[in-house]
Order: sequence, then C-alpha cells, then structure tokens
Amino acid sequence: MDFELTGAQRELRDRARVLATEQLLPGYAERERAGRIAPDLRREIGRQGLIASELPTDLGGGGHDRVASGLVTEEIGRGDINVAYLQAVGSLVGAVLARNAPAELAQEWVPRICSGEEIVGIGLTEPHAGSDAGVPRLTATRDGDDWVLDGVKSLSFAGDAAAVVVFARTGPSEQRGRDISAFLVPLDRPGVTREPYPDMGTTAVGRGAAHLDGVRVPADHLIGAEGRGFVQVMQGFDFSRALIGLQCLGAAEQSVDETWAYVSERQAFDRPLSTNQGVAFPLAEAETLLSAARLLCLETLWLGDHDRPHTDKAAMCKWWAPKTAHEVITQCLLLHGQYGYRTDLPFEQRMRDVLGLQIGDGTAQIMKLVVARDRLGRELAP
Amino acid sequence: MDFELTGAQRELRDRARVLATEQLLPGYAERERAGRIAPDLRREIGRQGLIASELPTDLGGGGHDRVASGLVTEEIGRGDINVAYLQAVGSLVGAVLARNAPAELAQEWVPRICSGEEIVGIGLTEPHAGSDAGVPRLTATRDGDDWVLDGVKSLSFAGDAAAVVVFARTGPSEQRGRDISAFLVPLDRPGVTREPYPDMGTTAVGRGAAHLDGVRVPADHLIGAEGRGFVQVMQGFDFSRALIGLQCLGAAEQSVDETWAYVSERQAFDRPLSTNQGVAFPLAEAETLLSAARLLCLETLWLGDHDRPHTDKAAMCKWWAPKTAHEVITQCLLLHGQYGYRTDLPFEQRMRDVLGLQIGDGTAQIMKLVVARDRLGRELAP
Amino acid sequence: MDFELTGAQRELRDRARVLATEQLLPGYAERERAGRIAPDLRREIGRQGLIASELPTDLGGGGHDRVASGLVTEEIGRGDINVAYLQAVGSLVGAVLARNAPAELAQEWVPRICSGEEIVGIGLTEPHAGSDAGVPRLTATRDGDDWVLDGVKSLSFAGDAAAVVVFARTGPSEQRGRDISAFLVPLDRPGVTREPYPDMGTTAVGRGAAHLDGVRVPADHLIGAEGRGFVQVMQGFDFSRALIGLQCLGAAEQSVDETWAYVSERQAFDRPLSTNQGVAFPLAEAETLLSAARLLCLETLWLGDHDRPHTDKAAMCKWWAPKTAHEVITQCLLLHGQYGYRTDLPFEQRMRDVLGLQIGDGTAQIMKLVVARDRLGRELAP
Amino acid sequence: MDFELTGAQRELRDRARVLATEQLLPGYAERERAGRIAPDLRREIGRQGLIASELPTDLGGGGHDRVASGLVTEEIGRGDINVAYLQAVGSLVGAVLARNAPAELAQEWVPRICSGEEIVGIGLTEPHAGSDAGVPRLTATRDGDDWVLDGVKSLSFAGDAAAVVVFARTGPSEQRGRDISAFLVPLDRPGVTREPYPDMGTTAVGRGAAHLDGVRVPADHLIGAEGRGFVQVMQGFDFSRALIGLQCLGAAEQSVDETWAYVSERQAFDRPLSTNQGVAFPLAEAETLLSAARLLCLETLWLGDHDRPHTDKAAMCKWWAPKTAHEVITQCLLLHGQYGYRTDLPFEQRMRDVLGLQIGDGTAQIMKLVVARDRLGRELAP
Repeated sequence: MDFELTGAQRELRDRARVLATEQLLPGYAERERAGRIAPDLRREIGRQGLIASELPTDLGGGGHDRVASGLVTEEIGRGDINVAYLQAVGSLVGAVLARNAPAELAQEWVPRICSGEEIVGIGLTEPHAGSDAGVPRLTATRDGDDWVLDGVKSLSFAGDAAAVVVFARTGPSEQRGRDISAFLVPLDRPGVTREPYPDMGTTAVGRGAAHLDGVRVPADHLIGAEGRGFVQVMQGFDFSRALIGLQCLGAAEQSVDETWAYVSERQAFDRPLSTNQGVAFPLAEAETLLSAARLLCLETLWLGDHDRPHTDKAAMCKWWAPKTAHEVITQCLLLHGQYGYRTDLPFEQRMRDVLGLQIGDGTAQIMKLVVARDRLGRELAP
Repeated sequence: MDFELTGAQRELRDRARVLATEQLLPGYAERERAGRIAPDLRREIGRQGLIASELPTDLGGGGHDRVASGLVTEEIGRGDINVAYLQAVGSLVGAVLARNAPAELAQEWVPRICSGEEIVGIGLTEPHAGSDAGVPRLTATRDGDDWVLDGVKSLSFAGDAAAVVVFARTGPSEQRGRDISAFLVPLDRPGVTREPYPDMGTTAVGRGAAHLDGVRVPADHLIGAEGRGFVQVMQGFDFSRALIGLQCLGAAEQSVDETWAYVSERQAFDRPLSTNQGVAFPLAEAETLLSAARLLCLETLWLGDHDRPHTDKAAMCKWWAPKTAHEVITQCLLLHGQYGYRTDLPFEQRMRDVLGLQIGDGTAQIMKLVVARDRLGRELAP
Repeated sequence: MDFELTGAQRELRDRARVLATEQLLPGYAERERAGRIAPDLRREIGRQGLIASELPTDLGGGGHDRVASGLVTEEIGRGDINVAYLQAVGSLVGAVLARNAPAELAQEWVPRICSGEEIVGIGLTEPHAGSDAGVPRLTATRDGDDWVLDGVKSLSFAGDAAAVVVFARTGPSEQRGRDISAFLVPLDRPGVTREPYPDMGTTAVGRGAAHLDGVRVPADHLIGAEGRGFVQVMQGFDFSRALIGLQCLGAAEQSVDETWAYVSERQAFDRPLSTNQGVAFPLAEAETLLSAARLLCLETLWLGDHDRPHTDKAAMCKWWAPKTAHEVITQCLLLHGQYGYRTDLPFEQRMRDVLGLQIGDGTAQIMKLVVARDRLGRELAP
Repeated sequence: MDFELTGAQRELRDRARVLATEQLLPGYAERERAGRIAPDLRREIGRQGLIASELPTDLGGGGHDRVASGLVTEEIGRGDINVAYLQAVGSLVGAVLARNAPAELAQEWVPRICSGEEIVGIGLTEPHAGSDAGVPRLTATRDGDDWVLDGVKSLSFAGDAAAVVVFARTGPSEQRGRDISAFLVPLDRPGVTREPYPDMGTTAVGRGAAHLDGVRVPADHLIGAEGRGFVQVMQGFDFSRALIGLQCLGAAEQSVDETWAYVSERQAFDRPLSTNQGVAFPLAEAETLLSAARLLCLETLWLGDHDRPHTDKAAMCKWWAPKTAHEVITQCLLLHGQYGYRTDLPFEQRMRDVLGLQIGDGTAQIMKLVVARDRLGRELAP
C-alpha cells in the first residue's frame, strides 16, 4: 500500500489547486448569477488538461489514471463545485464514447470534450421516472439511414451542451433494460427544444430537459449494439460516482478550512470563538469524516484503474460523501452565525449546490440497494 | 395532566389553520420574491386575533394563554414560516412593552402590534457581536428631555418595522449587562438608515440593520429602569424560544404531510414509492421527533403561563426544534428526488427559511450553555 | 392543555420515587446477581399500590389513570429497570384479563398481580418467529372439558411467573392472525418445563421459554372468543409500549442526574470536568431528548386513558424512547471514563438492561411499519 | 497511490486471518470466562510472527511495516478483540523500548514480547487522573544504584504482564509533563501488588492496577533521559491509535459478515429478513463507514512508516473508529433480535469489549482536542 501521490498526480492536483484558488473561488457566486460557466473559462480548464485527464491521449485526454482525475475533481470542487461537473460529466461521457462509440464518432467528439471546446451531456433519466433509467419512454425508430428520436431527457448543462448521450427504446420489449439503445444526439438539430429546470442550486450547471421531437441522427450515432445499450454502455462506469463524491468533498474541505480561519479570528464573549470546545469539536469531527470519505473515493477510483470490481464501493461513495459534505457545510455555515446565513459568504451556495448531488445519479436508497445486492445477490436483496 | 385543548385553544388553532391553508400556503413563494409580507395581509391576520393573542385585552391582545399562541404560531408556520415571525416577534416585543414600558407608551404601541397595524422589531444584537447581546456599542446619551442614540442594531423586519426596541449603553461600565438601558425607537426619526441583509432565506421577513445616527427619542421612550434594561427587560421572556420552535415545527409538519402524499402517488420501479421501507421509515422517524419536540415546546409555554421556571426548557426547544425541523425538511426534499430540488415545490424555501432559526436568538451552543448553567450553576458550567 | 399532575398522580409518583431511591437503587446490581426479584420486594411494591395501579379497584387495582401508572413506571425505572417490568407486564396482562377473561378467572388472578402476590407473564412470541406473533406453532386442542396445549413460548419472568397468557392455534387456518385463541396457563401444571435464556441483561427479569408438553387447562381458561384471540386480545393495548418507553427513560434520567454530579466533582487537567463544553453539551442534549420523549410517552398514555387512537404514538414511543435511553446511558458511561466501564458503577448494567427493550415487544423496524400503516393504509405501506 | 497490498502484507494478513478464524473465534467467549489469554496461545501467535511484526528483526520482530501490523491487528480483532491487545500493546511498548531503552534492556525484553513469551504492559494513567497522563503521583527516587518507586498505575494485562513501562515523577516540578521519567518495572519484584479492575468487558485482557510499594529497579531500567520521559517517550507513537482503531474495526467487520449471513437465512413474515430495506440498509451503511474508517487507519500507519506527521490523523482514528465499530456492532446485535441479546452469540461480548476502547488511551474529547490543536495551535485551541 502506498498513499504517496505519483509525480503526475501531484502535478495535476497542484495545477487544479492553483486554478481553483485563483480563478474559480473568486467567481463562484457570479457564475451562479450568470447561470452558466463561461465558455472561455471552460476552454482554459481544458487547455490546462484538467477535464477527463484519464482519457487516452489519442482522443485528446491526458492518459492519466482515474485517481489523478479524482484529485483534480476534488480541487476544482474547492473552487466551484459547479465547474467540477465538467470533470465528472466529461469523464463519464468521454469514457462512454471512447469505449462504445464508432471510432469516427469518438474522434469527432471526445477531443472537444477534453479541450473544453464543447460539453456533451448525458441524459439517463426522464422527468417521469426519477432514478429508474431502465424504462425510457424516449423512442428511436429506424428510418432509412437515420434514427428518429421522440421523447424527453433530463441532463446537466441543458443550456450549453452541444450534444447529449441518451438511452432510447428501439424495440418492443417492456422489460427493464431490454431493447434499449444508446445514441449521441447533437443538440443543434431540428426538433430539439431545451427547457431549463428551476433548481435551487447548481444553476451554473443548468440542469434541464432536452425535448426531442422527431429529431434525426445518422445511423453511426448509435453507441454500442442496438438493443444492448443499457447493459453495455452502463458497464464499468461506476467510477464516476467516486468523482461525484470528491467534487462534494472538495467543497466541504474548503468550507472547513475557511471556518477554522474564521473562528480563530472572531471574538465572542471576550475570547476567540475557536477556544470553545462546542465550536472546535464539530470541526474536528468534520475533518475526520472528510478524511475518511476522501480515501474511500480514491480507493474506488484506484479499483477502477485496475479493472477490479468496485460497484459496491462506488455506491458507498455516492450516498455517503455528498451527504457528509452537505452536513459539514451546514455545520460550517452555522459556525459563522448570522454571517454564514448571508449570500455574501459562499456557505449557503455550497450547501444548495452540494445538496443536488445527494439526488443526481441515484438517491441514497438506490445506492444502498446496490450495496445490498452486491452482498446478498438479487434474490435475497430488498 | 391533560393533553386536551381548551375550547379557546382549539378555536384559535382552527382559525389559524384555515388562514394558513387558504391564504398563506399559496403565496409562500410569492412573498419571498416580494421580499416582504404585504401590510394588508398583516392587518388581516391581526384582525383575526392571531398576533400576540396572549397579551391582555386592554392592550389589544386576546387575553389567551401562551399555549394558544404557540398553537397559532405552529399553524401559521405550516403556511408560511415567515409570517409566523409576526407571532414570535409580536409576542416578544408586546410582552416587553406591556411589562416594562411607561403605560402611555405601551398603550400607544401594543394595540398596533396586535392589530397588525405596525411591526415593532427587537434589536438585541449588533453586527460585530453575534449572540452576545450583553456588550452593545450602541450608546444613548441624555440630552435635555431626549436620549440621543448612536450605533447600529440588527433586527427582523428591518424594512417594514415602524419602531424597534433596542439595548444601548447608558453608562461607563464595560461589564457585560451593566449600564445598559432599553429604548423604543420609532424608525421614522431623522438619523435612521435601514440596511437590508443579503440573507439566504426569510427574505419576506427582511432581516437587516437599523443604523442610528444621532437619533433622538423622548425620555419616556426608555423602557424599564435606566442602566437596568438588560437584566430587567430580558427577564421572563424565554417563552418566545418555544414559539420559535413551533414556527419551525409547523413548517416541518406540513412538509411531512405533503411527502406522505407524494410518495403514495409517485411510482418507481413499478410500485408506489411509499411501499419502500427506505422511504417510509424516515417519515415515520420524522413524525416521532416532531411529535415529541412539539410537546416540549407546548410544555414550555405552559410553564410560562404558570410563572414556573422554564429557562432550561426554553433553551432546549430553541436548539432542538429548529434543528430537527431543518433535518426533517431536508429529508422531505430528498424524498421528492429531483422535484424536491426545484423551486416550484416549497421544500427548498422551507429548508432555507428554517435554517435561519438555528442561528437567530442564539446558536445551539448558547442554548446548551443555558441548560448546563441551569443544572450546574455558573461556577461549574463551561 | 395542562401539564400539572393531579394530586393522585403526584402522590403515586412520589411514593414510587421514595421506593426507587431507598429500596431499589441500592440493590440493583445484587438483583442481577440473584437472577430474580425477591418475592418479598415484589409484594412490598404491590402493597404500596405500585403495580398496575390503573386497574379497577374491584380487581385489586388502584383505579388510577394510565398517566399515573406511567409516572410510577418511570420512577421505578430510575431505581431498577428490571423491577419496572412488574409494572409494564402487570399492566398489560392485567388489562388483557380484565377485559377478556371470564369474570371468575379475572377475579382469581388480577388481584394477585396487583398485590405482587404472583406474576403472570405474557407469551406472545416463539423462539422461531421473532416479532411475528401472528403465526404461532403452539397448538391448543379441545379434549373434553380441557384444552391441551403443545409448543413453546418465550416470556419475561420465565422462572418466577405463576401463569402465562399465550396465543395458540385452535383451528386449521394458516393465515396470520386467524384461528388463534388466547389462554391463561398456570405454570405449575404437569407438562410444563421452564428454560432460562442466557441473556446479556435483565437477568433479574429472567426471560426464557415455557415448554408446554400436553399441558391441560380447563375450558374457562380460554380468554376472549375461540379463534378470535389475536385480534380481540391485542386490541387496545398499545399503551403498554409507552410504559416500556418510560421504564427506559427513568433509567436514563437517573444516569444523567448521576453524571451531572460526577462531572461537577471530578477534576481533570486542573478543573472540574463539567467546565468542558465537550462534557456538558452532551448532557444538555441528553436532557432535551429525554424531556421530549417523556412527554410523548405520557401523551400516549393519556390518549389511552381517553379511548382515543394511539397506535401510532405508542409505536413511536416504543422505538424511540428505548433507543434514546440506550444512547444517553452509553454517553453517561463514557463521561465517567474508566470508572464508567466498571461493574461497580451502575451504567454498564443499565446499558445492557435497556438494550433489551429495543428488541422486546417488537423491533424498531416493526414500530416504523406500524406508524407507516397508520399514515398510508396497508395497501400503500411497506 | 497504490491500494494494493505488498506480498509480505498479504501474507501476514492471510496468516492472521487463518489464526483468527480457526483458533480465536471459537474460543472468544471461553477466554472471557477464563479471564485471560492462555500463555500457550500467546506464544503460538508470537511464533507465527503476529505480535509487533514491525519491530526490527534484531530485536525479534519481523521487520515489516506498520501497515502490515495494522492488517494483522484488524484480522486478529475479527477473531478476538482481546487477543488484538497483544498486537496493540506489544507494538506500543516494543517501540518505546526499542527507541529509548538502554540496548541491553531492549535486548532482554523486546524479543520476549515479539515471541509471545512475555507481556510488557504500559501504565500511562493512574486511577485518580483519567486521561491526564502528564501529572503522575507515582514517584521514583534514586537510592544508590536503584530507583525506588511508590504509587499506583493502571494497565491492561494487569494480571499476566511480566513487566510494565511507567511514568514517574523524578523531580520537584509540578508542571504537567515536567520532571517525569519512564521506567521498566518487572512485576515480580517485592512491593508489587496487582489489583484487577471489575470491568464490564475485555476481561480476557484483565485491566487493573499495579501498586508499587517501595519497588526497587536498577538504574539501567530508566528509559530515555531522566526528567524528560514524558516528552521523549511519548513522541512518535501516535500510530498505536490507528492499531486500536483497526482492532475495533475487525470486530465490527466480522459482526457485519455474520449478520448478512443471518438475515439471509432468517425468515420473518414469510420472507427472508434481508429482503427488508429496513434490515439491509443499515448493513449497507455499516459497510460504508467501516470501509472508510479502515482506510483512515491504514493511511495513518503508512504516515508513521514514512516518518510523516500523523498526530492529527491518529487522533481521528482513535475517536471515530471505536465509536463507529461500537455502533455497528450494536446494530448487528439488534438485527439478530432476541438471539442477538443472548450470550451464546458473540455480539454482546463484542459490544462490551469494543466499548472500552472509546475510553482507553484517551476519550473522544481528548482526541478532538488533539485535532483542534493541530489546526489552531495551542493558543487558539480550546
């Protein structure tokens, strides 16, 4: 066992930290007001090699390991958890395309993801179905050389994404996960309408719906085999749940650092706030949980790097790290008293932003089911 | 022991429930956008006898008990926790004036509080000092028949309040709580500037600062004895902490009711969400804690009604009920999945609004100190 | 609403407190070693009117309300949670007999329960079935004027009980709750064997099994109608769950009182332990939860006293109060440091004893199901 | 970063696992009854190289890293958490002697520790002082070639230890940590009396007191410099706190494994218990916390292996891992229902045993102080 970062890991992490501190942190609130991440910033991050850096170099990635991507995501999360969606979504979609898309399609899109040139979203869920991605109502019908898509998908970056990967029903089966195919759908096609969701947070990410109304995509935009998309494409991508964990943990770690500093300076009842056990102990507890959750996420990424089973660990990261981060940030907010409640400090935005990741990509209940199935098998699991 | 409501208690509660359901709930989000509670609504609530109904009838109150006021506050909190500030602040300020102000001053202001004609705020804290109300920098200097006030106070309803009760230093002592006097300061005087705080929630209440810059008030606006204001005026008003608890619990109870309904209707994986233990059990847990916290608040009010010691119980209400309400509302939000995260459902606003009451009127740490001192005495307490 | 105790309630509570402090507390550990509650002590408690005092006077009870019984149970629990089983079991069994047994049978047994002359246990569960009392394997077959019982039941006071109320299958149905009848079985009959369970706590209560091997009881020992026992007899006895809550809370309250005293005296790092927020705050939190849980239990009893629905509230008491008591006692133990870990202080025994009541009479999971069913109906509940 | 075990780490861990499963688990309860770990078993474990395997080979150790020792401790903890004290205490005392004792003394004792031939205890605390080891009342006075010790120390293995390392006052200062020296005291000397403590658990370890009444040890039994013992000897041994964490986590991991198996087999309400979310989810949560806590402990050991600061991380391990283990084991006990409450299943003993390690070596409060001081410095910490 070796907890030492490699040179490359450290180098990437340090680069991300500089970016987070100098460029992201100061504009965190402003990006919320703008409701988007400026394309220039996105390209700058891509230029620095900080998006999906684990993808192969021939597709524009950095050829690094997933642990390195995790460290980057954590650091970016310190500066702006919304920007860290570029890492989490980019890694997920990039890997889906790299593994399953026709070579030409992958060559067309993956480098643009890595460079920050474009965002490609992923539309797993539909408004009616919540966490249940296995029963899409979106249909894709073959018509000559094209597929014609009809339906609606929810996705992050609904406003800015240039394309989206979706699951659509391509056959008659009504069974969960059957007769489902994956497609890449460019969002500049006729028949696409974008609808923003009125979310309480992560507005710089702009979650929303893409309504697809008779949208045509060429046959080579099919990803993976027809009718096998759900099983094939979803395979092996649990690791992105660990990225989600790290993006939340980054925001919480930054909050704890800022809170230690605040309580050291703030006086109450004639002494620094920090000299109260009732103030310092919750921060010591927060540090403990964050340290442990962080290692769990990094181990999960390492398992993915080495092609080892990590579905269970990824699910653990996904339910626990965002929840812990949310609780820690709430605690930090409270320790700032009335100042923490104000929008001119970043805690309330972080709290709202982080909360969304307890839901996105599957609720805590789904994740605990995943763990239980891993231990018990389908038969004996709830 | 008798857990049965009296006729008057039930009647008031039912009246408040109708108001909350029919008039408050539908406008909850709108009042946040407006950043205030419309004076017409306020007067309507006053007309119905639902503000500070425990004050004596000769001062415009209803002459009811505090338990009844608590029930009203809880119900109003179901509809709009911000509106319930009218109850909590009205009861607190009304009682301060009724007990300590010169009779004429009380006669001038208390009836207008009860009728909803005016809001009188209470400015205990200053921006520099957080929970420590015992060391004001606001000064009041005698000048002829007037007192001249200089300094700044934080208060709820900073935009709409017609007057505010403040503590000011009126003597040389620098000891905590010494040489402090209370005043009623009409906010239409020259020298008053109002500054709104950019809070993350309760914007319909509009917390902010009143800057007092050489503001003159007549001598009869002194409340209680000169130099004894802190001790005298603060005495016996712990009961408002139980009202704060109930206003939060109301919002949480309403959230739980709505969530039971939602999970009964929403299908996931081919069955109602509610049939999942992972969904129903957290709601059963929430009901348990809310039921218990509610009784604790009501008992505290009853103790106040009967002039029994309740400082410890009031502090318990204040730290635990808002915290529990916040956690329950967060849970309800999460059980609504992505819908819960949206601003078109009320959960996220409730979560933001309720959070403020973990801070206002003293943090959890202060409240636990109060309990510890009650048990240990000052000497042995932290 | 009125939180004032009646004269009778106060009188009973005070009597119980004296008994608990003077007679029970000093012998708490000794009764564990003895593995039983001495019959003389039991009779003394009965003589003082402290067992099932809510039963009607013509059956030997005190004719008090259930709230009074709750207060007694709480006080007894302060002295010895095992002795409080006499209250909880006595009230439950006494009420079953008073409501459902033939008058003569009730006259024979209930007064002896109230006087402490005898213990009558209740055998709801069987070793194979845990919380599921609706599918007994114990059978009762009619043979002339007798019923012949075969099977095994678990019960408290397995060593000392003179009789036990059991559910037995008296018909062919295999449906849950159908064809089940209740019987009173004197345990001095031929065919009865008692088996003690090697429990980790509550050994003074002596949970164990009664093996019934062709045991004959006369026809008039049938309680309620044949085949309707489960539904009929179990109806309306939820209130005993609130007694269980109070017996645990009593033990926890006593622990908190002792711990305040200890931390005030004990010096560490040159000052009293109590001056540490990290020591005093957990106790303030404990007081809060205990105060609230206590009111929830008392309200439940009051609902029972007034024939109002209280199945949901009783289930809330049952899962939450014992859990909270267990956590509080564990915290008290830890605050005593190495001394708390020793068997010469009562905390470790209390922790072991209280733990059993998170299981007995239904696990937390069962109780949350009960609450969910109350809110959702059977159809929509898990 | 590399989460792969080295060959040596794996080999040691596997050896420990075989021992734990085959030899320790079956005798867990029996060793409690016996009140000791049989010397033969101890020697067998030493023979297998499983005690203090990180000590240098020239002192009889295995020359492995601390991570390997941690893995061994965890596995041993699965079989019998009491036996794992041999690892935790052996590593701590072995390192103290290896680093600070005169070479001959180290040569005399350390190999006997590693071989399981003897136990050397460590007596940091005295009955009067709890976690505060810096103000011993034990005195050591120079008398010719000897030191004469008077006082009393608490230690694990009080019955079986052949010697004990103690801190004694050797000068006039009353300042915390000043004028304190460390000694090795063979316990077969005249003037030694052993007193067992009546603990609620870990009786196989036999915590107790060594009363030293004019006990003479030769001058070369001084460890480290005279008067500098506290600072010198305690330096750099935080890593043993991570071992304590792992020994608790092992016991919890074993409990979770056994509980998954039980709930898969046990039927309730006509289906396996495991198919209830209310049963499976708490186990999924337990797995998450244990996985994370385990990594935190291993990272701490790795930091120690590489001479990096780890005081903060060690303190985190110490408060959080035993607490989490205790809660998980309690949950496992409860999921076994009435069976879990019985002494013929191992859960209740594990719960009692593990609880002691929330206290021993410093309470949670002390550990949070350590973390706070690391972040804030002494001045600003509580």
